[in-house]
Amino acid sequence: MSTNRLLELFEQNPGEYVSGELISQQLGVSRTAVWKQIKKLESIGYQFDASRRLGYKLISSPDTLSVPELLSQMKSKIFGSSIHWFESVDSTQNIAQKLAEEGAPEGTLVIAEQQQNGRGRMGRGWVSPQGKGIWMSMILRPSTPIHFAPQLTLLTAVALCRSLRRVTELPIGIKWPNDLLIEGKKISGILLESTAEDERLRYVIAGIGISVNLEKTDYPDEMLNKVTSLRIANGGDGFDRTTIITDFLHEWEQLYLLYCEKGFGPIITLWEALSVSLNQPARLITPQGTIDGVPIGLDASGALTVRKEDGSTVIVFSAEMGEPVR
Amino acid sequence: MSTNRLLELFEQNPGEYVSGELISQQLGVSRTAVWKQIKKLESIGYQFDASRRLGYKLISSPDTLSVPELLSQMKSKIFGSSIHWFESVDSTQNIAQKLAEEGAPEGTLVIAEQQQNGRGRMGRGWVSPQGKGIWMSMILRPSTPIHFAPQLTLLTAVALCRSLRRVTELPIGIKWPNDLLIEGKKISGILLESTAEDERLRYVIAGIGISVNLEKTDYPDEMLNKVTSLRIANGGDGFDRTTIITDFLHEWEQLYLLYCEKGFGPIITLWEALSVSLNQPARLITPQGTIDGVPIGLDASGALTVRKEDGSTVIVFSAEMGEPVR
Repeated sequence: MSTNRLLELFEQNPGEYVSGELISQQLGVSRTAVWKQIKKLESIGYQFDASRRLGYKLISSPDTLSVPELLSQMKSKIFGSSIHWFESVDSTQNIAQKLAEEGAPEGTLVIAEQQQNGRGRMGRGWVSPQGKGIWMSMILRPSTPIHFAPQLTLLTAVALCRSLRRVTELPIGIKWPNDLLIEGKKISGILLESTAEDERLRYVIAGIGISVNLEKTDYPDEMLNKVTSLRIANGGDGFDRTTIITDFLHEWEQLYLLYCEKGFGPIITLWEALSVSLNQPARLITPQGTIDGVPIGLDASGALTVRKEDGSTVIVFSAEMGEPVR
Repeated sequence: MSTNRLLELFEQNPGEYVSGELISQQLGVSRTAVWKQIKKLESIGYQFDASRRLGYKLISSPDTLSVPELLSQMKSKIFGSSIHWFESVDSTQNIAQKLAEEGAPEGTLVIAEQQQNGRGRMGRGWVSPQGKGIWMSMILRPSTPIHFAPQLTLLTAVALCRSLRRVTELPIGIKWPNDLLIEGKKISGILLESTAEDERLRYVIAGIGISVNLEKTDYPDEMLNKVTSLRIANGGDGFDRTTIITDFLHEWEQLYLLYCEKGFGPIITLWEALSVSLNQPARLITPQGTIDGVPIGLDASGALTVRKEDGSTVIVFSAEMGEPVR
């Protein structure tokens, strides 16, 4: 017996008690089976009032994304044109990669209410509890060569930052290359996994995690000085995830089309305007060694230009950026 | 019953007939089972003389690579330090990728005698029959950022070209970016599949196919004006595959270490010296359109600099290179 048919029964009788006997008859299962399904729904966020005499009443549903609602609000044409929604997955990146290998087109979107094993940069984990954030991955098939893959990472950060600033009116900035911060605390992560054959990009899986409605209790204590959510930053009032997703997909698609037509120049300007990493001392840990200096901008390829203490500049392609050591 | 035990019996009696009855007794199987195993061995290149009175005599074995022999001749330290050998696989790239995902270290080498579904550039097939070529894939884990992945493709072509010229003394040149040609016909293909997380290369699977001892009859007729083998180009005399593999791995490792230490500059010089694509008109078909011009060299990133008819130069990152249209 699927919980879908049980939920339909409650949707047909909103705000009313439905007797266990009626459910049992309608679905053709035992009353014990009905009770087990109610428990299962409670475990994923549904709340019921159970009365011995009257039966069960649905009090509240978890905040669940609805694909028809998403599609009806969608302003983008390609991005999100096909949506694969899951209650719970190991990682949306893995599913999107499988779809890409099977030939799914650009713009195919995978969204999950919950990730068991969300992935961040460098194999780090990512807190992604049920229904409280946006955990999604999208397939890109750009015709740019592999040299320019990092530009897509920066473009995605710009699109997400612009969209979230507009929807939430919160002071969000970009930490190089692609973390979004509010007052120094991380509210979203972007991870672009590229697959290339020689110099040709075959596809890119863009993973986006946005901590929308998480509460302080959703995070381990030791993380609270490093991470926050849009809701916490907004004084406790949450945001509608459907609005955030559809607005972001639209902004992202616009910038992507601009990039395909005009190149990386316009994106550099937008990125630099939103960045919180420029013009202040930083320590950059690269595979080749540590660099102390002041990041002053992006070069034409998307690498970071850093002015060192002796006045010379270096180009940094890949690094972990941290606070300067004083 | 494994064919290995049957082969051992013949190795213990070199040049002699072994009776079906003796084999049947020694291996504890029926004489019909023995006959079936002989047929199986014949199907993969072993030749037997069968006498009703005397039994079977092993006439010749297929040219099969021996891992202990490869390891004993190996001059490289990291490249090929671990070898996974297979009689037949779908594609060595797929196996190496799986090993890389499981954490196999840099230098892990996958070699197969035969590929059922060898892959070339852009999803094209690759003729890779039993025992006549070198079909292999190696895991690289460079600490260079993704921007520089194409440099590894050019480096690999230089290493293979230098090594094959030394071992075979044939006039081999590099067609941009990484095909090796003898008198305009392709004798090897290189395919580097990169996997990256944002700007970090996670690993690169370098696939190398070398047509060593193939004969004209191994190719479809319509391909014979485009491809050749070292053996055909050498007037019918073949080459020892173990020597080619171990010499190439050594050259490749030397250039890779040079690249990690000194950067791409020295590789540009070597590539340009061996290239057959420079200073003659070509048509380059890029995702953005067709360019007619004369390739004049590599730029510092590894892209091709092309002089157009009007005297201006363009940088080409990715293209199919063909003959100019006259």
